Amino acid sequence: MKEKLKVGIIGAGRIGRMHVENIVSNFRSVEVKAVADIFADKLVDWARELDIKHVYKDYRKILEDPEIKALLIFSSTDTHAQIIIESAEAGKDIFCEKPIDFDLNKIHQALDAVEKAGVKFQVGFNRRFDHNFKKVRDMIQEGKIGDVHIVKITSRDPEPPPIEYVKSSGGLFFDMMIHDFDMARYLTNSEVTEVYASAAVLVDPAIGEAGDVDTAIVTLKFANGALGVIDNSRKAVYGYDQRVEVFGSKGCITVSNDVPTTAVLSCVEGVISDKPKYFFPERYKDAYIEELKAFFDCIINDTEPPVTGRDGLEPILIGMAANKSLAEGRPVKIER
Amino acid sequence: MKEKLKVGIIGAGRIGRMHVENIVSNFRSVEVKAVADIFADKLVDWARELDIKHVYKDYRKILEDPEIKALLIFSSTDTHAQIIIESAEAGKDIFCEKPIDFDLNKIHQALDAVEKAGVKFQVGFNRRFDHNFKKVRDMIQEGKIGDVHIVKITSRDPEPPPIEYVKSSGGLFFDMMIHDFDMARYLTNSEVTEVYASAAVLVDPAIGEAGDVDTAIVTLKFANGALGVIDNSRKAVYGYDQRVEVFGSKGCITVSNDVPTTAVLSCVEGVISDKPKYFFPERYKDAYIEELKAFFDCIINDTEPPVTGRDGLEPILIGMAANKSLAEGRPVKIER
Amino acid sequence: MKEKLKVGIIGAGRIGRMHVENIVSNFRSVEVKAVADIFADKLVDWARELDIKHVYKDYRKILEDPEIKALLIFSSTDTHAQIIIESAEAGKDIFCEKPIDFDLNKIHQALDAVEKAGVKFQVGFNRRFDHNFKKVRDMIQEGKIGDVHIVKITSRDPEPPPIEYVKSSGGLFFDMMIHDFDMARYLTNSEVTEVYASAAVLVDPAIGEAGDVDTAIVTLKFANGALGVIDNSRKAVYGYDQRVEVFGSKGCITVSNDVPTTAVLSCVEGVISDKPKYFFPERYKDAYIEELKAFFDCIINDTEPPVTGRDGLEPILIGMAANKSLAEGRPVKIER
Amino acid sequence: MKEKLKVGIIGAGRIGRMHVENIVSNFRSVEVKAVADIFADKLVDWARELDIKHVYKDYRKILEDPEIKALLIFSSTDTHAQIIIESAEAGKDIFCEKPIDFDLNKIHQALDAVEKAGVKFQVGFNRRFDHNFKKVRDMIQEGKIGDVHIVKITSRDPEPPPIEYVKSSGGLFFDMMIHDFDMARYLTNSEVTEVYASAAVLVDPAIGEAGDVDTAIVTLKFANGALGVIDNSRKAVYGYDQRVEVFGSKGCITVSNDVPTTAVLSCVEGVISDKPKYFFPERYKDAYIEELKAFFDCIINDTEPPVTGRDGLEPILIGMAANKSLAEGRPVKIER
Repeated sequence: MKEKLKVGIIGAGRIGRMHVENIVSNFRSVEVKAVADIFADKLVDWARELDIKHVYKDYRKILEDPEIKALLIFSSTDTHAQIIIESAEAGKDIFCEKPIDFDLNKIHQALDAVEKAGVKFQVGFNRRFDHNFKKVRDMIQEGKIGDVHIVKITSRDPEPPPIEYVKSSGGLFFDMMIHDFDMARYLTNSEVTEVYASAAVLVDPAIGEAGDVDTAIVTLKFANGALGVIDNSRKAVYGYDQRVEVFGSKGCITVSNDVPTTAVLSCVEGVISDKPKYFFPERYKDAYIEELKAFFDCIINDTEPPVTGRDGLEPILIGMAANKSLAEGRPVKIER
Repeated sequence: MKEKLKVGIIGAGRIGRMHVENIVSNFRSVEVKAVADIFADKLVDWARELDIKHVYKDYRKILEDPEIKALLIFSSTDTHAQIIIESAEAGKDIFCEKPIDFDLNKIHQALDAVEKAGVKFQVGFNRRFDHNFKKVRDMIQEGKIGDVHIVKITSRDPEPPPIEYVKSSGGLFFDMMIHDFDMARYLTNSEVTEVYASAAVLVDPAIGEAGDVDTAIVTLKFANGALGVIDNSRKAVYGYDQRVEVFGSKGCITVSNDVPTTAVLSCVEGVISDKPKYFFPERYKDAYIEELKAFFDCIINDTEPPVTGRDGLEPILIGMAANKSLAEGRPVKIER
Repeated sequence: MKEKLKVGIIGAGRIGRMHVENIVSNFRSVEVKAVADIFADKLVDWARELDIKHVYKDYRKILEDPEIKALLIFSSTDTHAQIIIESAEAGKDIFCEKPIDFDLNKIHQALDAVEKAGVKFQVGFNRRFDHNFKKVRDMIQEGKIGDVHIVKITSRDPEPPPIEYVKSSGGLFFDMMIHDFDMARYLTNSEVTEVYASAAVLVDPAIGEAGDVDTAIVTLKFANGALGVIDNSRKAVYGYDQRVEVFGSKGCITVSNDVPTTAVLSCVEGVISDKPKYFFPERYKDAYIEELKAFFDCIINDTEPPVTGRDGLEPILIGMAANKSLAEGRPVKIER
Repeated sequence: MKEKLKVGIIGAGRIGRMHVENIVSNFRSVEVKAVADIFADKLVDWARELDIKHVYKDYRKILEDPEIKALLIFSSTDTHAQIIIESAEAGKDIFCEKPIDFDLNKIHQALDAVEKAGVKFQVGFNRRFDHNFKKVRDMIQEGKIGDVHIVKITSRDPEPPPIEYVKSSGGLFFDMMIHDFDMARYLTNSEVTEVYASAAVLVDPAIGEAGDVDTAIVTLKFANGALGVIDNSRKAVYGYDQRVEVFGSKGCITVSNDVPTTAVLSCVEGVISDKPKYFFPERYKDAYIEELKAFFDCIINDTEPPVTGRDGLEPILIGMAANKSLAEGRPVKIER
């Protein structure tokens, strides 16, 4: 019996715990040996149930454990860069929830530390591992639609987050559209060169009072000449709306939403189908597992992670340009 | 038996003849009494077949016929304004193919003449009469999606027009996207206040050499606060792609393309459905009839035409702003 | 200008008038010269409006008109055979609404008269000219699904006819499923050899009291080895349900219902599409025109009509076998 | 920490191992303590990997273990009845893969033993736990379509099993359509009273030589008056085709196949979607987990299993009637 890959978890909030449970259920060759969280006390029962040996308040305890080969960072965004640096210096491979940070300097310091240490580093852009979006990317790579001309991405949440969250979220472009910036790069396999952001407060005035927008359309230009557009809304009453369309010289690929069932009721009121899966835990259930599988595989097989440090950096650059575009009412080029 | 409404046709090129044949087949209460065209000689047999009494080279002959109550103008765009003015002065009700003109002064002169004469005037934005788009508009008016937040319009041709046509077309924004500007106003029931145009030559370099673009994404802002985006391509290899999506506070309406048949083949290669109807004559076959029905109805019932002079003017204003935006690389407000 | 094909109409009830109006609007090369109907008095205004020269009470007046080359018979079923015989003897080409008759002897006499006279004869199985079903047939003929193994036909009306109509209709198998028997032969290009009928009164007890059934599932065996099944209901609350599925060695073709629009509303209640087109006048609007076009074309081009006398006879044989199967509770072979 | 429910597995062929792996990954409160299989030697590594303590050749070792509360039987059909009887006598709760047996006497002996012992007993009709079919059943139970009038079930395999398997399979009605007989009862919540079977050898003559059929249409009558039809084929080249349609007085519910992705490619060749998920392991992946969840839940909560002994018996009765119907060429009533 092969020895298990031992990993540590830093940050076990809602998302962190979901990831841990995914690991325990799906990866028999991986052992979650330790979890660190500032609310460690509350995690004891949960950890025991999952046969996790150690629960620490201080994540450095994990860094000191030589058996632990890799770290998965699910703590709050403002802690990411520091933990990445220390983990890299400790020689651990790193999976870090997106975004790395909102501060370019801190991102660069973190990525530099990773490079210097030569550890593996993967950013948590889970949607790349969604069965639908991955298929679109694969078809494009196979040349099914020829050259990409137009990319359209729709991303709408079923409901806005609490206002308190909005205030500290970094704003719609960093908190929500950042996934779409990554998706745009992923699908086109090309860098964004220019951004024009158009946005409004149409869902809830409180979001505007908190200094954010809740509805946005952002136009993109790509290095390969393609054009793109992303639309976001904080509130789609019919549920999580996650679609892309890529149009090229030889065809067009669209993906529609995943639905709980294919049942369709024809009745006096009309022909009624299921609403999309409600939100990200349902829609990206398998994608969350697949992204970890990819991470573990690249450790086990010593290959490159499929989402790199640069993949973590670029969407931040695009988001910054979008914010600037919105503030100044003009298109803004991405500066690298 | 009621007396028939007698109408005259000015311009019997391909589109003009299609309209005439539609009238003859579908409106038994309307008589096409005369047709005027600079190539009148070639139309004699066609006109006789359709029981059209007169074929003139000079459209003024039609203006002089007191029995003819209404004129339908399908001649080349540069003749529209002058003919409108003379027709209005002759007291004829007028249906004019879009666009009225590309010159604001000439548009205003034409509309002034119409207003002064008090004749009816309808512009040929046929897509408003498409069963799908009309249903979307109706559902929005009924409040089915609450307040409109986002409008998305896709309009892609199956193949680019000849380069000679491109050169005299007024450019993509005037020749192609003008329909979408109209659709945007129609669906939202609100005026466009600002435009940002992003475009490229991706289909055929010859289009670029002719001074035009062939791929474009245009972002719109509306007076009611909504945001919009239109994407156009001169070449969709799978056929005419004409879709809209309107997202609001209470829901989202999408329309997909009309297809020749609902037959679906499941085989080793996949599950294969029909491509969209090939181009505008197929897709808007019924819409062309419906727009004329609306025109004749408003003459017979003495009501307002459903597409007004202002509806003819506004898309020109938006197109001019789009051209300016593209030239200057910045969003441009609509000036009225 | 070519001379028009002059035709006469026998029977101008609701369906007959629909056909006449279709001819007038769509076939400029055909002239409806005369109409005969027992209620001729009530048709005068309607006929004048359509420029029909003669309205007769006695259909023999039409038979005597040497200018009239073809007859279209839309009178009640019990008159079909006699009129066919007389029309054939008068040398007129004949289009006859389905069914020819319910009595085998009368059908054979009518078909014999047609054959003896050498006139053209087409039966009104309009669904063969539906864009969807025709596409399925064409794809099968092209070998897209290889050998046919299974045919499934669904045919459900939006509401039952009046009980008085039910009593004289010949029963569900002759009045309703007869179209599906024809469709089964059309799609498979093979004869039905055996039938097993299963039926019930589930929609309205009054239909049972009138001696009929309102819900049925009929299993078919075909000469080429394929199996088939048809299901009928007199009442589908969501509208006219007209679908087929043909499964073969290389694939499967399905057709779904035609819908008024492709608009789809996503809202709190679900994702809601249009119900099917309500009933046969909407669903088969174009098919009614296409079947007449085929008839006129075969006269003009002197070719064989696409729906023959045998095509009129066979569904009656199948219907008789279905009735016998239901009465005797066992599968019944078709006797020819 | 609650004590785990300890279970034993009898039969660890392909399906058995799939179930075991599902338990280990998905049910942390359940421990697979022992596995028995005649090829026990080959299972040692696999069992160790999954932390299964014991691997026996003789299943009676499991019956003797007082810690093991429940047995899951995945051995060959001919062993089911005997193992059920012994397990019941040993006081174990029982999950048994379908079918219980093909011999009515043995089924009754097994069910009698279960009843006498008062142990829980669930039969493995996994499709009842499919998200789509369960939704249809739920909607029917909620009255969404009123009274059920027509049930249609399509079930087609992507490829026939090996001829050797065919020979010992019990035939298409017992091996394949038995699932559909169960589905028919499940959806209608009513017993089948009469069956008429129509079948042919269209896929592979070797299947016919082995004494079986490969294509079948079976008509059902239900105690509640509804009619039903099932069609089966051993070979659908486009993959596993698993659909149902239930039509009632207030509407109709259909389910289409599950697909790997929602990606749709529009190109010159057409509009191409994914084929259905390939076969049962993909399509019913979650259903296999859900059926075990239901079994464990009913042990833990001491409730009735959702698929009872009678649910195991009835499809056998229907299958026997179908075989008789096919042999005698007539409809056959179900005898109980």
